Amino acid sequence: MARWEPDSRGRLREAALDLYGERGFENTTVAEIARRAGLTERTFFRQFADKREVLFAGSEELEAALVTAVAEAADSVAPLDAVAAGLEAAGARLPQDVGIARRRQAIIAANAELRERELIKLASLSAALAAALRGRGLEEPAASLTAEVGIAVFRNAFERWIEPGSERSFAELVRDSLAELRAVTAAVPAPAR
Amino acid sequence: MARWEPDSRGRLREAALDLYGERGFENTTVAEIARRAGLTERTFFRQFADKREVLFAGSEELEAALVTAVAEAADSVAPLDAVAAGLEAAGARLPQDVGIARRRQAIIAANAELRERELIKLASLSAALAAALRGRGLEEPAASLTAEVGIAVFRNAFERWIEPGSERSFAELVRDSLAELRAVTAAVPAPAR
Repeated sequence: MARWEPDSRGRLREAALDLYGERGFENTTVAEIARRAGLTERTFFRQFADKREVLFAGSEELEAALVTAVAEAADSVAPLDAVAAGLEAAGARLPQDVGIARRRQAIIAANAELRERELIKLASLSAALAAALRGRGLEEPAASLTAEVGIAVFRNAFERWIEPGSERSFAELVRDSLAELRAVTAAVPAPAR
Repeated sequence: MARWEPDSRGRLREAALDLYGERGFENTTVAEIARRAGLTERTFFRQFADKREVLFAGSEELEAALVTAVAEAADSVAPLDAVAAGLEAAGARLPQDVGIARRRQAIIAANAELRERELIKLASLSAALAAALRGRGLEEPAASLTAEVGIAVFRNAFERWIEPGSERSFAELVRDSLAELRAVTAAVPAPAR
């Protein structure tokens, strides 16, 4: 069994974010991350598949929280409100510290490979959400469209949550983005004069 | 100047789709595509940057058609209806022959690199659409949310358009997807009993 390594996962993530921020993702090695964290490479690879996955660890838990909350919403709840409940449950899986989310996003934004990886994770999240909605009896194409809308709301709330100076909770921002979306989709052309 | 090569672009695209379908995208070379089309590699590279771009050629024109139609919609038109007009204009830039679109999509679905490339193109389309909506005076976050909804509608209409046996026009499917989306976002919880 491994030696006792207090919060080795958190220390590795912190060291990785520091190094990616200082010298760029592409110029950082796993050996350097482990050294900065005061741990071994072997410990790194017990926690993460590779240096990219340090940034995306936890996305399975986030997806599971989203899907479970959608599935468990009462039958009487409208599809988009079930999605809102799912997004709030997913939000509870985001880093407690918005500073970590902010640093992570800046690193992803600076690297094309990481941006692609994020798009793929979001597409997978959307597919899982559509499946959960079909499980509630919503038919296609409504299920896929509602899922895409949900992911758009998630991204939008996330971007606003990590904005410098933002003090609103992720859950509040989800509700706010949904309200904006409902206003836009409800808008009808102004009458011709 | 180049020799006269009647529709070399179309012949190269046709040859590429044939070969990607027969032996896979990754197992096809530019030399083979040129040979199948009865043209030279040099002619290929006058038309396309690489073998991947054969599949994504025309996406700039599609984006330009989308953005222009959104910008030119009358001020009185609601944002989502301006987006619908843009999507119909973009649809007119899709292959005339749905069979070509269908073969292309099967090739993309079979290759992870091509799927990533498509996600990036769609993200770029969404960003361009959001900018066009801001140009109409729509503020953030409504502009980005509306753009994401528009791209979701575009993808959904496209998937239904290329379904085997589908006989509806892309424009009809755009209107249909938008109506589905409006129904979903308008739905409110059923009253508790």
